[in-house]
Amino acid sequence: MSESGDMGLVVVGAAGRMGQTLIRAIHTMPGARVAAAIERPDSAHLGKDAGELAGIGIINVPIVNDPLPAFAKANGVLDFTAPSASVEFAGYAAQARIVHVIGTTGCSADDNAKIAAAARHATIVKSGNMSLGVNLLAVLVEQAAKALDPEDFDIEILEMHHRHKVDAPSGTALLLGEAAAKGRGIDLADNSVRVRDGHTGVRKTGSIGFAALRGGSVVGDHSVILAGTGERITLSHHAEDRAIFARGAVKAALWARAKKPGLYSMRDVLGLS
Amino acid sequence: MSESGDMGLVVVGAAGRMGQTLIRAIHTMPGARVAAAIERPDSAHLGKDAGELAGIGIINVPIVNDPLPAFAKANGVLDFTAPSASVEFAGYAAQARIVHVIGTTGCSADDNAKIAAAARHATIVKSGNMSLGVNLLAVLVEQAAKALDPEDFDIEILEMHHRHKVDAPSGTALLLGEAAAKGRGIDLADNSVRVRDGHTGVRKTGSIGFAALRGGSVVGDHSVILAGTGERITLSHHAEDRAIFARGAVKAALWARAKKPGLYSMRDVLGLS
Amino acid sequence: MSESGDMGLVVVGAAGRMGQTLIRAIHTMPGARVAAAIERPDSAHLGKDAGELAGIGIINVPIVNDPLPAFAKANGVLDFTAPSASVEFAGYAAQARIVHVIGTTGCSADDNAKIAAAARHATIVKSGNMSLGVNLLAVLVEQAAKALDPEDFDIEILEMHHRHKVDAPSGTALLLGEAAAKGRGIDLADNSVRVRDGHTGVRKTGSIGFAALRGGSVVGDHSVILAGTGERITLSHHAEDRAIFARGAVKAALWARAKKPGLYSMRDVLGLS
Amino acid sequence: MSESGDMGLVVVGAAGRMGQTLIRAIHTMPGARVAAAIERPDSAHLGKDAGELAGIGIINVPIVNDPLPAFAKANGVLDFTAPSASVEFAGYAAQARIVHVIGTTGCSADDNAKIAAAARHATIVKSGNMSLGVNLLAVLVEQAAKALDPEDFDIEILEMHHRHKVDAPSGTALLLGEAAAKGRGIDLADNSVRVRDGHTGVRKTGSIGFAALRGGSVVGDHSVILAGTGERITLSHHAEDRAIFARGAVKAALWARAKKPGLYSMRDVLGLS
Repeated sequence: MSESGDMGLVVVGAAGRMGQTLIRAIHTMPGARVAAAIERPDSAHLGKDAGELAGIGIINVPIVNDPLPAFAKANGVLDFTAPSASVEFAGYAAQARIVHVIGTTGCSADDNAKIAAAARHATIVKSGNMSLGVNLLAVLVEQAAKALDPEDFDIEILEMHHRHKVDAPSGTALLLGEAAAKGRGIDLADNSVRVRDGHTGVRKTGSIGFAALRGGSVVGDHSVILAGTGERITLSHHAEDRAIFARGAVKAALWARAKKPGLYSMRDVLGLS
Repeated sequence: MSESGDMGLVVVGAAGRMGQTLIRAIHTMPGARVAAAIERPDSAHLGKDAGELAGIGIINVPIVNDPLPAFAKANGVLDFTAPSASVEFAGYAAQARIVHVIGTTGCSADDNAKIAAAARHATIVKSGNMSLGVNLLAVLVEQAAKALDPEDFDIEILEMHHRHKVDAPSGTALLLGEAAAKGRGIDLADNSVRVRDGHTGVRKTGSIGFAALRGGSVVGDHSVILAGTGERITLSHHAEDRAIFARGAVKAALWARAKKPGLYSMRDVLGLS
Repeated sequence: MSESGDMGLVVVGAAGRMGQTLIRAIHTMPGARVAAAIERPDSAHLGKDAGELAGIGIINVPIVNDPLPAFAKANGVLDFTAPSASVEFAGYAAQARIVHVIGTTGCSADDNAKIAAAARHATIVKSGNMSLGVNLLAVLVEQAAKALDPEDFDIEILEMHHRHKVDAPSGTALLLGEAAAKGRGIDLADNSVRVRDGHTGVRKTGSIGFAALRGGSVVGDHSVILAGTGERITLSHHAEDRAIFARGAVKAALWARAKKPGLYSMRDVLGLS
Repeated sequence: MSESGDMGLVVVGAAGRMGQTLIRAIHTMPGARVAAAIERPDSAHLGKDAGELAGIGIINVPIVNDPLPAFAKANGVLDFTAPSASVEFAGYAAQARIVHVIGTTGCSADDNAKIAAAARHATIVKSGNMSLGVNLLAVLVEQAAKALDPEDFDIEILEMHHRHKVDAPSGTALLLGEAAAKGRGIDLADNSVRVRDGHTGVRKTGSIGFAALRGGSVVGDHSVILAGTGERITLSHHAEDRAIFARGAVKAALWARAKKPGLYSMRDVLGLS
């Protein structure tokens, strides 16, 4: 493990869509470099150059299938794979005593327990949404919801996504709704209004409303509106491209390099916990 | 009927909420003055000064119950009353050969036929929404919907109103939806999506989506979004206060003063028909 | 001083524009009542009913010129007057051991010292901007600016006001700029960009940009934009009417009723300090 | 020249940044195919596959340097090159009697005259901005500015672009300002306010204000605000990526295929002239 210079990062799942995005993100951000690129033993991409595959030209990092020697020489790992793989990688990161950034979703309680155990020796940052902006917005929404009286301010959450999205509201809209509900000390499920059409009656005090727009190629827009008598606060996030999750992961790794082993969240990376 | 100077306007229903708003609007707009204030014979406000009642101080116009002599001396009438009253006033306006601005809603086909007949001698401007801005927006939405291919651009309509509103979507949102549908040559009812929650599937090409937000004291915000691949056009109207309908009516009267008898709409007033 | 029931509030400067707005605000908010209305000895309005003057009908509170007996029987004072008057009222509030909400601007260091001294016995809330929303926004902006790296996120502040406003940027825009600068630990004056026209060159890292729009009757819109690579956070406040300052003052008084003597800010009222 | 099936399009300047974007745009849009790819005789890319260079894989269209045989077999040409080249290509397009879409900027009066002459036999669409959305917005802005009285509605133009942009306001903001000025029948230069800082005085009736924001990676946002008393109309365009200019060019070519020779603009393509 190198102690100084650019942080050497291993990308696992390096030939996948998110793996390639991670390699491009590392490439454009100062302070980090691609140390190794790992794929499964049955990958058709083994041996190819990870940079060329990601469209940034040759970086002299071949895609290989053995994580252990790669981890031993690196400072951190970026991981948007699958729960079982992430649990395994957390163990290797603990052995190597390096940083492990986990953007994998769908982990079971058991998976999370194993990751927490690995965090005794690895410096792990884990989040279901690696965007700096969305995580910051959730913190601000929670504070705003806590500060403003539900008798005075109504909370509405609006999101817009591209025409191909098949569900509503978005996961991020629900995450922001949870932040608002937490700020108010209420349960979201019991207080959310998901649909308004026809005779709705007057708005119920303390409820949290959702609305979803769909169209074009919109990557993801979210607004939380706190509407009172005579004034309105709107807290919004606008995503231009999906690479923000990869950049957030690199940012998390750079932040974690100087930290003691432990299990951290994006709120820690933002200095807001 | 005076031929020059400020336009003398009769307000019918002068003691009601909208009547008072009309009197305040005339008071602040150059080129117009309150010529008379009419109420029903059973009104408790007969004899009071119309300006004082409206909160702008004494204007020396007492509220009276006889429209005919008032119309004879005036240049126009502003009317947000009820269908039967508006039909009667249209007849008097035809006799006096003056302007009649009708913001009354709920007229039957028979009422409208009588109003059209009166328009042989009166200069009538009639609209269900007297806001200049909303009428202009509807024209622009129709043109945009016509110009852009439904295969390329998705149309979404978003509105926000105060917490006391009991139905959704708003009448203005539906009016904008009708304008979009007209631009595309389709029927709104067959192509609108009023609710999105849970598994929605991909967006249907050519559909027009609606979403409603409720909260605080919002007077009325409307946005029509045309979302394509890589770009979005948003056409919005923001109402600060309900007096815009009164100001639109005064504006219509001033415009109509120089026009021949006939039945006009707010699109004519805007020069966009 | 009554210990229970609605909080009795004295309005000083009761016949002025802000005084009347305060009386209307108290009138519409639960938990508060107008206890007394004070004007200067030379006011032409002495003896008139404060409610009638404010347009809400008779409330049986005559405008008087002697603050001391009024303070002795009240729970709090709302004060948007002038520095010398506010200093005097603070002394009376200290004697009466009641709440004093001060929205007065332009106090000197000496004035502030006297107000701080009075706060040993009075419960004083003082702020240059009494809007709950603007104060909350400033706190959120400071946190966002602190959390996000200036190398990654650029801060821009946009405001829009009515056509009659004669200066730019607005005081609130500067207040938000100060909050952003504080979050970053920099000086606003050294880092702000107030004008962009013609050849500007690339944006300087770490600078805070301002832009002002003017038009119509806009009461006051403010947005703070934090723009990074691939994502943007926007934190906005929209004021519908100037009464939000009066409502914020009443809210502050209600909050302060249960608090020990001391000098508080709107951040304390929001529970965010 | 094939008469049916997908429209065969020649891309000139095929190895440049815009040329590659054009090839990708054709590839994703139904009804069009890449017929040929032209570069200058000294290009290092001659012989390479145009699709592979553009990152969409091999399409079996080698980059060549002789336009004439390519034009003879195609239905149209997409051209974002330079004035002298575009004039030459217009002559070839006239010979081949095909469509020529010209997004080239900086043409002199003489260049334009030659292009107009070529349009006797070629079907030419020429515009300084090939985005469908921006061109539509300009038409709507002109109409809105024409319909609304300058005494009543103030016009403001706001734009935001990425941190690397070196001038302000943007060309598109000025184009929108020209559209507003045209709608009002005034000269933009005599009526624009480009800067607001410090004591500005009240807003001058009839002026058109500009404001520019800079930050992050914003591709280009533009809003035209028409602000009256009590209401506001906002007409906005949001660009997600620069490929909208390429898509607009392909759209223009498809529209022009069925048209007689002549010189057309994007307004014609939108059916709004």
